[in-house]
Amino acid sequence: MEKITSQQNPKVKKIISLRKKNHRDENDLFIIEGYREILSAIDNGFSLESLFICPEFFLKDNEPKLIKKVIHKKTPVFELPPNIFSKISYRDRPDGLLAIAPQKHLCLKDLEKLIAKKKDFFCVVAEGIEKPGNLGTILRSCDAAGALFLIVCDRCTDIFNPNVVRASVGTLFTVPVIETTKKELFPFLEKQNIKLCAATPSAKEVFTKVDLTKKVALAMGCEQYGLSDEFMDKSSIKIKIPMMGKADSLNVASATTLMLYEALRQRQS
Amino acid sequence: MEKITSQQNPKVKKIISLRKKNHRDENDLFIIEGYREILSAIDNGFSLESLFICPEFFLKDNEPKLIKKVIHKKTPVFELPPNIFSKISYRDRPDGLLAIAPQKHLCLKDLEKLIAKKKDFFCVVAEGIEKPGNLGTILRSCDAAGALFLIVCDRCTDIFNPNVVRASVGTLFTVPVIETTKKELFPFLEKQNIKLCAATPSAKEVFTKVDLTKKVALAMGCEQYGLSDEFMDKSSIKIKIPMMGKADSLNVASATTLMLYEALRQRQS
Repeated sequence: MEKITSQQNPKVKKIISLRKKNHRDENDLFIIEGYREILSAIDNGFSLESLFICPEFFLKDNEPKLIKKVIHKKTPVFELPPNIFSKISYRDRPDGLLAIAPQKHLCLKDLEKLIAKKKDFFCVVAEGIEKPGNLGTILRSCDAAGALFLIVCDRCTDIFNPNVVRASVGTLFTVPVIETTKKELFPFLEKQNIKLCAATPSAKEVFTKVDLTKKVALAMGCEQYGLSDEFMDKSSIKIKIPMMGKADSLNVASATTLMLYEALRQRQS
Repeated sequence: MEKITSQQNPKVKKIISLRKKNHRDENDLFIIEGYREILSAIDNGFSLESLFICPEFFLKDNEPKLIKKVIHKKTPVFELPPNIFSKISYRDRPDGLLAIAPQKHLCLKDLEKLIAKKKDFFCVVAEGIEKPGNLGTILRSCDAAGALFLIVCDRCTDIFNPNVVRASVGTLFTVPVIETTKKELFPFLEKQNIKLCAATPSAKEVFTKVDLTKKVALAMGCEQYGLSDEFMDKSSIKIKIPMMGKADSLNVASATTLMLYEALRQRQS
């Protein structure tokens, strides 16, 4: 295990540069920080390019086991002193583990096998989600409710943004995520016989009273403007969430969670 | 309207100091930023101590109306140039409106009138919510689902933290929020005949299959450790959210939203 002792080390500079989208894109790499997140990545078939550790920050006793796993795969591991690790960390309280990993890019075609195996599943299509934290929270809810996959359509948030990774607490690696465009998405959904369901305040029916038990893609738009006209046109199901308060809106991740668990409830009852 | 032209102006320094909890506590003041948020505060009976504006950042045409309302109440208004307003703003894209307001402290006794008027309401009791953003999102869901109030028990997050205000998008002013301790809370719930309902993975019954139609307080604990033993002991209803994925957890605001809308669904069906 190599030790890094200078902040000027090119590896340290590289990690910090990966906080920026253009550097992530150029290098096709991203940052995974934290024990839980790195373990989830490894367990779900993501490979690491390198691992950076700072034993002074370790919280429990299971870090050495994780590091052993990584070394076993011949991934280089670097040890950093606390002052340098704090610089590369994205957290207030780092836990002494940070990895760099190659980005994984799935496309719609990759879903075909997955879809063939499942009957009457549900999934989420997110259009124009702006905040990385919301996208990460949506991933977490997709995992919890058992959504088959998440499609990010005409993305405006990089799914490899460190705040997506953080808010997803490792579910970025458990839920298949596909980035695509409307142009590719709509024919795909049609061919696969997946109904598009739009959540919109203008719908007549409440989400708990509409049949969501067929193959369904829950379409969620951005908080401020909602779904695009094209999405609304293509949605054969339209549902609304009752708004009883004064503010008349929900956080987009909260709204998505409600849809997901309603799809699950209908399948379980 | 007075113009502020120097960053060294004591008012500018005061606003920046209010980002820190000890300064908020000392002065019993907090920051409200943004058109939507300030309007919600005024419309819901919060008074402002002062308003700071930067017309160069205004997004629409309804700002002058809001400013007129504020001036009408004899609240001092100060105009700042963009470079200074950017310093006091908490946002990436400020909208040119930021206010300072006195904190409002409700206690359990203040709820009695509200409770007397309502039959079989639901509310939330949050224990140990750590992230201000989550607390703000919970407030937003409380407003949307029609919860009667939110109780923050043994707080570890200041409800006047700027990130609570921001994530709540103004619902901090529409939903009554009470800070209290377990010692005061438990006798109060008993006296008012409000059932405590704990969301916990160890529960046997799924949340959609348990009767939540009586007066109920939905108790939510922190993500990492859940509810305290005392809360678990006092909860006559225990429910769980199905976890179908690998990560086995939901964001606490997402989980709270599910509970809230289930309580609403049962009342509407």
